[in-house]
Amino acid sequence: MSDILQALARTLEERKNASPDASYVASLYDHGLNKILEKIGEEATEVIIAAKDAETSLNTESVIEEMADLWFHCMVCLAHLNLTPEQVLQVLSQRQGLSGQAEKAARTQS
Amino acid sequence: MSDILQALARTLEERKNASPDASYVASLYDHGLNKILEKIGEEATEVIIAAKDAETSLNTESVIEEMADLWFHCMVCLAHLNLTPEQVLQVLSQRQGLSGQAEKAARTQS
Amino acid sequence: MSDILQALARTLEERKNASPDASYVASLYDHGLNKILEKIGEEATEVIIAAKDAETSLNTESVIEEMADLWFHCMVCLAHLNLTPEQVLQVLSQRQGLSGQAEKAARTQS
Amino acid sequence: MSDILQALARTLEERKNASPDASYVASLYDHGLNKILEKIGEEATEVIIAAKDAETSLNTESVIEEMADLWFHCMVCLAHLNLTPEQVLQVLSQRQGLSGQAEKAARTQS
Repeated sequence: MSDILQALARTLEERKNASPDASYVASLYDHGLNKILEKIGEEATEVIIAAKDAETSLNTESVIEEMADLWFHCMVCLAHLNLTPEQVLQVLSQRQGLSGQAEKAARTQS
Repeated sequence: MSDILQALARTLEERKNASPDASYVASLYDHGLNKILEKIGEEATEVIIAAKDAETSLNTESVIEEMADLWFHCMVCLAHLNLTPEQVLQVLSQRQGLSGQAEKAARTQS
Repeated sequence: MSDILQALARTLEERKNASPDASYVASLYDHGLNKILEKIGEEATEVIIAAKDAETSLNTESVIEEMADLWFHCMVCLAHLNLTPEQVLQVLSQRQGLSGQAEKAARTQS
Repeated sequence: MSDILQALARTLEERKNASPDASYVASLYDHGLNKILEKIGEEATEVIIAAKDAETSLNTESVIEEMADLWFHCMVCLAHLNLTPEQVLQVLSQRQGLSGQAEKAARTQS
């Protein structure tokens, strides 16, 4: 499934050549790092609020929407700093000792 | 990289049966949603600070470490609410019109 | 100096009778608690970014501006929940054992 | 309430000469700006969570406690950057056109 992250990373890379007027992502790059980090702060806040609302309403749809917004702006931040989601996932994988499990999962799926 | 999030989601699910004394993730579940959301707020803050430091030091390693921490606790939040990263990635994919690209990427990789 | 906080609290209370179209604060009340909390998250992020920028540029003016934004929206949150800045300051005072010092300071000033 | 912030600012200034082992504030200064900003991010998150809990439980006590924590660490940040709460309150006052009201309030109190 995280071919989606790879595809998104590729799209975000391409947007570096787009006009800030034509592309939301290009306008974020154009505003610079502070603007991108403000969005990460905003979206993290919205995840927290949506999760608290889910606790009482049992409506989890907006948690997923806000989490997608947060991850999206994390991906824009990585692209802006010339980093990749693979680097983040590799750290996650190493910490959790998941490499072996992920390999096994990959074998099981094919 | 694709299966790392899936493998992590599986591990986080298994931790629901672990003892809070033996597993960090089980202790987060045990403390409940507020504790997990506090960690999301903390880690988002640390991403922002690390990115600002990267701007001047050109050292991006801690951005990757902190982003991994943030994504990890997002994954714990999803698991706690019985949600999956697939649901988040699907929203990301739909918004960016990435479905086609992701499929093509998946084909190219195999 | 924190007669300013008292005066602001009074103004924010009055805004509860204002039209959301005519007053920014009334529009925040009208949107409800989530909107006010989003602003607290946003402004806290902007304080952090401004403080990091101050570290390298030695320009502290925007730290003060962003801190004022943060405190302002904290005051709106308190008003929305029918709480007062006095209640917050009293906790601060008790924790720091400041009561005595504050009393002495008040005497010295007059 | 007016002198509590001033008294706290004075105490925080004095703590610059204290040992990091003996004083929490001195240990924050010693860790440096990043640690202080992390605390602002953490406490802002805790205000948000406490306010959401207050919405359903009508228990506002922890909102006041967390707001006090947030303001406290804002004050530590200001002290660390050699700024004062007066500077923040002055901006608040000017923006809200409160100067006149605050003066009047000060007169009424005495």
